[in-house]
Amino acid sequence: MNSAPAQGLVFHLDQGRVTHAGETNAVTEKIRLAMVGGGPGAFIGSVHRLAAAISDRYQLVAGAFCRDPEASRAFGVELGLAPARAYGSYQELLAAEAALPPASRIQCVAIVTPNDSHADISCAALEAGFHVLCDKPAAGCLEEALRMQSAVHASGRLFGLTHTYTGYPLVMEARDRIAAGALGELRRVHVSYLQDWLSREEDTSGSKQASWRNDPARSGESGAFADIGSHAFNLVEFMSGESITAVAAQLRSVVPGRTIDDDGSALFRLSSGAQGLLAASQVCTGSVNALKIELFGAEGAMSWQQEQPNTLLFKRRGEPDMVLHANMDYLGHSARAVARTPGGHPEGYLEAFANIYQGFADAVAAFPESPQSTGFASIDDGVAALRFIRAARLSSEQGSVWTELAAIERNTA
Amino acid sequence: MNSAPAQGLVFHLDQGRVTHAGETNAVTEKIRLAMVGGGPGAFIGSVHRLAAAISDRYQLVAGAFCRDPEASRAFGVELGLAPARAYGSYQELLAAEAALPPASRIQCVAIVTPNDSHADISCAALEAGFHVLCDKPAAGCLEEALRMQSAVHASGRLFGLTHTYTGYPLVMEARDRIAAGALGELRRVHVSYLQDWLSREEDTSGSKQASWRNDPARSGESGAFADIGSHAFNLVEFMSGESITAVAAQLRSVVPGRTIDDDGSALFRLSSGAQGLLAASQVCTGSVNALKIELFGAEGAMSWQQEQPNTLLFKRRGEPDMVLHANMDYLGHSARAVARTPGGHPEGYLEAFANIYQGFADAVAAFPESPQSTGFASIDDGVAALRFIRAARLSSEQGSVWTELAAIERNTA
Amino acid sequence: MNSAPAQGLVFHLDQGRVTHAGETNAVTEKIRLAMVGGGPGAFIGSVHRLAAAISDRYQLVAGAFCRDPEASRAFGVELGLAPARAYGSYQELLAAEAALPPASRIQCVAIVTPNDSHADISCAALEAGFHVLCDKPAAGCLEEALRMQSAVHASGRLFGLTHTYTGYPLVMEARDRIAAGALGELRRVHVSYLQDWLSREEDTSGSKQASWRNDPARSGESGAFADIGSHAFNLVEFMSGESITAVAAQLRSVVPGRTIDDDGSALFRLSSGAQGLLAASQVCTGSVNALKIELFGAEGAMSWQQEQPNTLLFKRRGEPDMVLHANMDYLGHSARAVARTPGGHPEGYLEAFANIYQGFADAVAAFPESPQSTGFASIDDGVAALRFIRAARLSSEQGSVWTELAAIERNTA
Amino acid sequence: MNSAPAQGLVFHLDQGRVTHAGETNAVTEKIRLAMVGGGPGAFIGSVHRLAAAISDRYQLVAGAFCRDPEASRAFGVELGLAPARAYGSYQELLAAEAALPPASRIQCVAIVTPNDSHADISCAALEAGFHVLCDKPAAGCLEEALRMQSAVHASGRLFGLTHTYTGYPLVMEARDRIAAGALGELRRVHVSYLQDWLSREEDTSGSKQASWRNDPARSGESGAFADIGSHAFNLVEFMSGESITAVAAQLRSVVPGRTIDDDGSALFRLSSGAQGLLAASQVCTGSVNALKIELFGAEGAMSWQQEQPNTLLFKRRGEPDMVLHANMDYLGHSARAVARTPGGHPEGYLEAFANIYQGFADAVAAFPESPQSTGFASIDDGVAALRFIRAARLSSEQGSVWTELAAIERNTA
Repeated sequence: MNSAPAQGLVFHLDQGRVTHAGETNAVTEKIRLAMVGGGPGAFIGSVHRLAAAISDRYQLVAGAFCRDPEASRAFGVELGLAPARAYGSYQELLAAEAALPPASRIQCVAIVTPNDSHADISCAALEAGFHVLCDKPAAGCLEEALRMQSAVHASGRLFGLTHTYTGYPLVMEARDRIAAGALGELRRVHVSYLQDWLSREEDTSGSKQASWRNDPARSGESGAFADIGSHAFNLVEFMSGESITAVAAQLRSVVPGRTIDDDGSALFRLSSGAQGLLAASQVCTGSVNALKIELFGAEGAMSWQQEQPNTLLFKRRGEPDMVLHANMDYLGHSARAVARTPGGHPEGYLEAFANIYQGFADAVAAFPESPQSTGFASIDDGVAALRFIRAARLSSEQGSVWTELAAIERNTA
Repeated sequence: MNSAPAQGLVFHLDQGRVTHAGETNAVTEKIRLAMVGGGPGAFIGSVHRLAAAISDRYQLVAGAFCRDPEASRAFGVELGLAPARAYGSYQELLAAEAALPPASRIQCVAIVTPNDSHADISCAALEAGFHVLCDKPAAGCLEEALRMQSAVHASGRLFGLTHTYTGYPLVMEARDRIAAGALGELRRVHVSYLQDWLSREEDTSGSKQASWRNDPARSGESGAFADIGSHAFNLVEFMSGESITAVAAQLRSVVPGRTIDDDGSALFRLSSGAQGLLAASQVCTGSVNALKIELFGAEGAMSWQQEQPNTLLFKRRGEPDMVLHANMDYLGHSARAVARTPGGHPEGYLEAFANIYQGFADAVAAFPESPQSTGFASIDDGVAALRFIRAARLSSEQGSVWTELAAIERNTA
Repeated sequence: MNSAPAQGLVFHLDQGRVTHAGETNAVTEKIRLAMVGGGPGAFIGSVHRLAAAISDRYQLVAGAFCRDPEASRAFGVELGLAPARAYGSYQELLAAEAALPPASRIQCVAIVTPNDSHADISCAALEAGFHVLCDKPAAGCLEEALRMQSAVHASGRLFGLTHTYTGYPLVMEARDRIAAGALGELRRVHVSYLQDWLSREEDTSGSKQASWRNDPARSGESGAFADIGSHAFNLVEFMSGESITAVAAQLRSVVPGRTIDDDGSALFRLSSGAQGLLAASQVCTGSVNALKIELFGAEGAMSWQQEQPNTLLFKRRGEPDMVLHANMDYLGHSARAVARTPGGHPEGYLEAFANIYQGFADAVAAFPESPQSTGFASIDDGVAALRFIRAARLSSEQGSVWTELAAIERNTA
Repeated sequence: MNSAPAQGLVFHLDQGRVTHAGETNAVTEKIRLAMVGGGPGAFIGSVHRLAAAISDRYQLVAGAFCRDPEASRAFGVELGLAPARAYGSYQELLAAEAALPPASRIQCVAIVTPNDSHADISCAALEAGFHVLCDKPAAGCLEEALRMQSAVHASGRLFGLTHTYTGYPLVMEARDRIAAGALGELRRVHVSYLQDWLSREEDTSGSKQASWRNDPARSGESGAFADIGSHAFNLVEFMSGESITAVAAQLRSVVPGRTIDDDGSALFRLSSGAQGLLAASQVCTGSVNALKIELFGAEGAMSWQQEQPNTLLFKRRGEPDMVLHANMDYLGHSARAVARTPGGHPEGYLEAFANIYQGFADAVAAFPESPQSTGFASIDDGVAALRFIRAARLSSEQGSVWTELAAIERNTA
């Protein structure tokens, strides 16, 4: 027996190519995490738990998983929680945990409930002194997100949103290279996020997710634009390092019987003056989870697609195209810091999700030293996304008139 | 708070498209696992632990991680093991665990040490009554693999090899479709596994992995052919459902100073009479982890590449090409059973590795009922791979003469 | 010697897979063609001549190639024309040819001059009784195109525009399948035509083409939108079989010193109510000639890219993607009728251009029987494109307001 | 009217990016060409004529197109030949043309008959003092090719073979970069040429081509290896700049009833010691015309595929991949010299074929000054290909024994 690694995977290790995210901090004590939502049959809950596990930085020690208190407690025990910490409601959870000694009480709460409950749970958790990592979008509407923003600032605690796609290493690489000037002044950004799971009339009521999304009281003011347009918006701002300042949009319900948008597109402007196009649709037949982005600047262009996340295309005028691959040495610090495998070993959606969890763990570990982090989306990002959705909806209602994001709260107050 | 899943990921769930591998068995008690090898700096150990975590079917409860007993124990504690079960050697581990009550002792041992120690540790673990999941190749040479095969049969315990690439969902899909006749009679198979991490002279001694691999005493009778040719061999047999019966090979050391092969290729024949080409090289500049396979039959052809594992190309004469995507409903049972995310959410190497762990967990859970499983490679597969390596080496030494695999033990006894 | 074909190329011939466009009509007398424009150094002239040669349906018998009469005549002789038919001006050409006996005079005129001269030359040629095949866009502005439209109708002669990209076989295939309902009701169309040859300030005056394009008096009312946006517009209408009815656009000059647009994008609506996005830019660094289109309907989606023209992607919800290849038997009549090589032998831009020439030749050969043809763009298509450009410019000047194409002439009269 | 080029295509012209192959030599008198073979229904004849037309360097002035003298003459007239030069046989053609004054007689003969007649016609044409451009392979067997080689040397005339695939610009680019050291010392070459048009039993007799190919008396000593393996062989030698020195092959007839090989593969060695794999098959279902090559050296790797000929992949260890595109400025002289369109305008098979014609035209124009050319394959290349086929067949018959090409004539004399 020997500590030398076995064959096949490890060939790059001694060359220092791989930073294994999790175990380099093996001595660090794990962060005590509670989950709210994500009960039986709630797939997103399991994804969050897998992401936390892959990050290797959290220990799930408490939870309130569904509305039925008994079912919630039973599910917690199933997951291996101590029965006393498998709670019947989030209120019970927050009260009981806050009463525990600091060294054993939870440090942060992961919120994986529907949009309309994010604000209440987040505010309560922050007020109880816990950090919050919340599924996106921040809330069901802009006003609730603004309330959360105030609560975050008042609490002084950390708040993160799981905009998963910014967790992909090559998205980070693109952002870093763009920030360093690889594209020169930005000119044009094209982003589209297309799906087809709501493409038919029977999809409206055919599933819990679908019917819930078609109920404005539950989903908020928008359908496809809130659900996936918010990802597209966030990806543009993340990669470009700029703000979207204005939008001219047309949202609509393609499938009969829909009360909120299932399809839409927009022109937009960035703070540098660059121009953009955004499309978000859940009725684009043949598109499964097709998030694509292209950024063009005076000196170069980059493009990336979520469904093939391990390559990043970089083009310059009059030069051969360059294809960058994930987990390679030539990548910058951000991308290499989250590589769990050597080059040539593809990573995917769960690893990207884990990277968000890891970024949040880094912030928790450093707390209260360095509240600023690019490893996860902030409440300000969440507010910006909902402001964009509001602006897009208002623009659409007024014949796609150009609508400034900076004026939204004033106009809709 | 509500048990309904949050946005973004979950759109396919209620449509029954996703089987979440891990938590469907949440009530199943987790399998008690020990690890041998995989100490500090041993990357493969961490991959095995991540894979076990993603599978959500194991609990690491014991281990002996490196040759230095103190370091081994300390590392176990770091990983969160109870100090009493962080052992100083595998012998100590096996003895102590065997002495524990059945309900608390380990059920299986994961072996992640160099090739030359696989046989001793495996045999000891099997004799102690534990199931064994071992990194590939099975052993440093054919004779040791044959000894392990005897031990497996004598013990009646389960033995698995982590031939990771058969854990990819679309590899399983291809195998199932081929078994069902999608290609008709097989005619031709092309497989290549090319890397470049040993492409230069300084690579020979530049890393622990590299120098270890160049030492026949440590690595066994072959370099690149054993290390990655064994994966290529196993992938051909797994996907085709056939045996490779004969080989005409040429192995060689391209980089000066190498004592074992770093590059080679071969003609081969399959049991159906189909003809094949295999290349394995660790000096192919620009290839990072390029495992590719194409299978051609009388009625169709399939091709798959490890570096883009979420698509499978299926072609028929005179028809448009078909591109199958991972995690979609149109896939068969095997591929869907291991999907952790909906279609359009890419999975990668770690998930494939987790699928091997999951297949082994299924076998352990069913034990002793159903010893046959396709979820992981068996000791017979491991013996076959080493027999192939032996045959290739002998063929190469004799001017690439056609060499029957069935005659190997007889000829080399 | 033997009439049987030699090796390599011909394997599909006897299976009836290949219709060789040109020589099937070998007995048909060739069409007598004159060219106006396309003198020394005028690349487009040589492309037109190559396209005519590849189509194998024309004989260039006359021409007036440049403004300098002597140079024009000399160039005609260089090209092999009879000196008497190498003219000094297009007026001279039209007069002299009209005076020849019908059996020897030209039948059609190819116009390859700058936009601002298309109308005068076309009208004169039509009035002289000749068919006209004109480079795109039809004219420098909408009003001139309308004048040409009247002239076409008054003359009863054939008029075609060389919108090259509709000459690609798989574009025809997509159109035919869409017309037959392959996509169901159309929902969304994304088209972009991006180039980078004007991406820098020095490009404005650095070349004859560039400086000419930046002069509104020469190029017409728009730059990038007229030059390549017109191709994108035409491709959408051709493939979808629908009309673009309204546009909300933002055009702009990105590079300092430009007087007309070099970049822009738009929302648009189709007659079915489908929504679209269009981008046209000549300052998108890294894009060489990137014309791409995606069409999404209730039942399927198609996408095609000019830079990889021999494949067409067809997707349906919940089914594997289909990749159609050019020149295969499974394609419909239109695509197969223009195949010059068997499947697997790529064709390109020149063949697409030749297909336009071939479509026009078919119409000339049938004249006056069947004036309707889909083999080339008509003057109505040309008017529509200029109406779109006008609408986009007006929309842009008014803050991207939605602008109906049907109201354009009324509003701008 | 104006000599400035019209829109769309021409944007790169004034920037000097495009060398338009044909018309730069517009003043050069065209080469007087005769064709032997390629009569009615002979597709390859029409491809040769199209290629000559696209090259814009030849004038077809004579021909003998099929065995039936009347049909031959009639077809010549159909093609527009002067009746006196539409001959009834190649013997008649050679005699009559040789009797014409030098300024009007043909300069070269294109031979597009079946393999078994190449030698007789070529030798006669060379003896009559004409240059010869012959379809590949050079002859039906090695002995005939050797006879042709003697005739070429004795005559002092030019002889070219149309190995089309070396006419692709990016194949030339790869060759030039490799010759300049881009890959360092070559280590490994993988080439495969796979088709499926003979994949079924009914294909054997179902077409004239197929049945002809299955008749050793007509096709020569090999089927798939001669027909397309010869292309693969030639491509390896052309791109690598090396000779294949030895081969260990296995040829076979997969489909019942075949008398010659329809499938086979081989190990081979290059003069530098590099190792290679070659596969050639006409029964690989789903492969239409799949010629692919990968070359790996100590410093880099290149790969190219005929079905996507406008991109060339170049990889180096530890660097992003580079994708080179056809017709771009960054390419070397060879590739740019044959570009007929600007970057981003794809070219295909016919243009590659035209480039061979163009290369031969350059040699004819320079004759007798510079008999060496890389623009087309020579008789020596043709002999080498047949020697390779012979060696592969002999190796296969002797259990895939390594067979030196240098010893072939001696051994088979």
